[in-house]
Amino acid sequence: MLDKVGVTESLAQNIVATRWHDVPPQARHQAKRSLINFFAVTLAGCRSSPIEIALGLLGQFSGVRQASVIGRRERLDAASTAFINAACANVDDFCDTHLATVIHPTAPVAAALLAFAELRPVSGADLLLALILGNEVQARIGLAISPSHYNRGWHITSTCGVFGAAVGCGKLALLSERQMVWALGIAATQSAGLCECLGTPAKSVSVGNAARNGLLSTLLAEKGFDGPAEPLAGVQGFYHALAEKPDLSRVADGWGESWEIMATSYKPYPCGFVIHPVLDCVLDWRRENPKAEVTHVVVRGNPLLSLRADRPKISTGRESQVSVQHAVAAALVCGKAGLEQFTDSCVREPEVLKLRSKVEVLRDENFSTIAAAVEITTADGRTHKLTQTAARGSDVNPLSDRELEDKLRAAAAAWNSRYDVAPLIDAIWGIEESSDVSGLLSLAAPA
Amino acid sequence: MLDKVGVTESLAQNIVATRWHDVPPQARHQAKRSLINFFAVTLAGCRSSPIEIALGLLGQFSGVRQASVIGRRERLDAASTAFINAACANVDDFCDTHLATVIHPTAPVAAALLAFAELRPVSGADLLLALILGNEVQARIGLAISPSHYNRGWHITSTCGVFGAAVGCGKLALLSERQMVWALGIAATQSAGLCECLGTPAKSVSVGNAARNGLLSTLLAEKGFDGPAEPLAGVQGFYHALAEKPDLSRVADGWGESWEIMATSYKPYPCGFVIHPVLDCVLDWRRENPKAEVTHVVVRGNPLLSLRADRPKISTGRESQVSVQHAVAAALVCGKAGLEQFTDSCVREPEVLKLRSKVEVLRDENFSTIAAAVEITTADGRTHKLTQTAARGSDVNPLSDRELEDKLRAAAAAWNSRYDVAPLIDAIWGIEESSDVSGLLSLAAPA
Repeated sequence: MLDKVGVTESLAQNIVATRWHDVPPQARHQAKRSLINFFAVTLAGCRSSPIEIALGLLGQFSGVRQASVIGRRERLDAASTAFINAACANVDDFCDTHLATVIHPTAPVAAALLAFAELRPVSGADLLLALILGNEVQARIGLAISPSHYNRGWHITSTCGVFGAAVGCGKLALLSERQMVWALGIAATQSAGLCECLGTPAKSVSVGNAARNGLLSTLLAEKGFDGPAEPLAGVQGFYHALAEKPDLSRVADGWGESWEIMATSYKPYPCGFVIHPVLDCVLDWRRENPKAEVTHVVVRGNPLLSLRADRPKISTGRESQVSVQHAVAAALVCGKAGLEQFTDSCVREPEVLKLRSKVEVLRDENFSTIAAAVEITTADGRTHKLTQTAARGSDVNPLSDRELEDKLRAAAAAWNSRYDVAPLIDAIWGIEESSDVSGLLSLAAPA
Repeated sequence: MLDKVGVTESLAQNIVATRWHDVPPQARHQAKRSLINFFAVTLAGCRSSPIEIALGLLGQFSGVRQASVIGRRERLDAASTAFINAACANVDDFCDTHLATVIHPTAPVAAALLAFAELRPVSGADLLLALILGNEVQARIGLAISPSHYNRGWHITSTCGVFGAAVGCGKLALLSERQMVWALGIAATQSAGLCECLGTPAKSVSVGNAARNGLLSTLLAEKGFDGPAEPLAGVQGFYHALAEKPDLSRVADGWGESWEIMATSYKPYPCGFVIHPVLDCVLDWRRENPKAEVTHVVVRGNPLLSLRADRPKISTGRESQVSVQHAVAAALVCGKAGLEQFTDSCVREPEVLKLRSKVEVLRDENFSTIAAAVEITTADGRTHKLTQTAARGSDVNPLSDRELEDKLRAAAAAWNSRYDVAPLIDAIWGIEESSDVSGLLSLAAPA
């Protein structure tokens, strides 16, 4: 039997009690970095085919043009907009990651908060606090059930994201503790999403739902739509149904002493995180050896690298995101690993195709998931040994602010070469001064 | 490791291959009975307070007035309408039950199908076939995981209802086998709902979502939005995440030999099914003894009766639905157990209040959940012994067509005393002749 005294209630108390001045400056700054990254990945994803289909369908049901789909002309009702923007942010596997849980935290939370901000004015400081708290709660709920929950097949970004979206919106709506418990309950009964759908458009449905349903959970609770007293730890509640032996102490212990948003990783390359340390090695080497002809590459990494990304034969850009062979080949041929290296046309490039067949992958349990070693053999017979102990972009080797800006600049340029992204970047760094953040959305709309 | 060869694919093949002439007349007739019951419970529930709140909220997001909320003037987009009508049908715990799984089958499926029928013309025969298949699939998916899934806290009506709604709508949309697999996958990744929410408005959210999300699963799959090949039995799929040792043979074995819709129970009384055999005894006795003064009542039933409904002190109509003390007292005082016996005002009635304290509940494992024994002691010192072995309305002691009609008549009269329900009843019995069933909805709208 679990200890179930007041887990949800004490969480709600913590959420309601936390104020802007309780959050340290580095967490506030990290929240802005997460927003920079969120706009980058959303602009990168907003024209992908699953988004086109979902947008076409939801558009038929959405008569009210309340809110802005990032990077698109369409406006939809706030709930559908939250769905689409979250799906866009996550569709390319380019969004941020909380490595301890493998949650992609900002997609569902930021999408819900920005939709809320088009229903009622929200200040920049309130948005940042809501984003920090939403990320905090979904990470803590997820930490209590990791790794068994994810291993069982749950898509943890979706199952925990609905709580993050509800809590963040609940903070913006100034829910009472009681209402916050209800919002968590309405979120809990909508928690869903299966890893079986990864690699298919169906993945985007549960991510979109997490944002939409989190927003609705708050708006229902605000109107007095009540739920159970202990949705998380009750005998028929979330943890009992979706977890094996959860460690419920992770939900509340040490609240306010550190912030999970500080553990966020941001991807420099639009492909599976396990491939990243390999790309770090290859790109560094290519920079030093721009002309060298490569004859063979041996990659050594954590077993997860082979499990997820040992994929020599691929035919689409979507598959290339989980092929270490493609990533290495494209990086060697192009000297970079940006959005254009993971497209159908790059996959078909003869030189890349040829090099893919020369990349060998070995598994080695001595490597963490953010480490790798690469041996590159060149036509002159020499072998070059390279290692990366902590991938760039991981929380222990973070991207600089400038690098994050560059990621947004590159995504914006690919989206529309005539678009000037500078005002959006300035607005995010200066967001604490804003009394109404909905202006961000007009800065990310087509002219 | 589960046997996972083609569970979803073979299910999709069965669904696509099944035609109107494959379904026997008694299953078609039962589908009409389910519709009679669906309109009864929806009219009964359409003014409850959770529905008012949800309708108010979704109305703010729904600009397109495509579809009809049963019993109300409001029109919403089809997806939101599916949500609200399913929630209405289930809000009072008065809807039909598949006892082997405890699924309330028709609420999510019929709500989704009727919303679909307002997007595109649907004939009566097609609607019945889709309802039969939707019920069949959700029951089979549920049978494979019963009873452990429900015992773990999953609200099985919601978790399996999304499949029923997707499959029924998929049948109406003439999905191919491949599209049907996608629709099942998009449904699987939206499967959610916790029993912890029972007895609170939050319950209605997952039931409404089952209808809405099932409808959307089909409409997405139809447009080529794909999903995994094996969403049910895949290693990160539905059964792995939501079930303990599923019996996957239940999904396909004996398809077409019998129909789960034949195992539907319909409630004569708007309260927990476990209370029903008790009410059968008490009402029969009261009919024979209209004037006798009752001094004591002992109820004996399956342990589930005490677990769910031994509730002597209550204060609201909603609580009275799960109080055997109240049900017995109200039946003795009023001589009936209809909607008006489970209201706040009946709960406060002094005579009912007095009698509630005289009802004792005993648990006895020898009784099934649809059986009970009652001993009524009267002021003259005599004790009257009554037993019920199979509750009226259960699949083994079914309500007659006339009794189901009466249930709809009573609900309609309580909804609006000037409303003539006869045309709706006639339209349902004659639905096979209809080329466009959306007419049913205009027959269930306020004047």
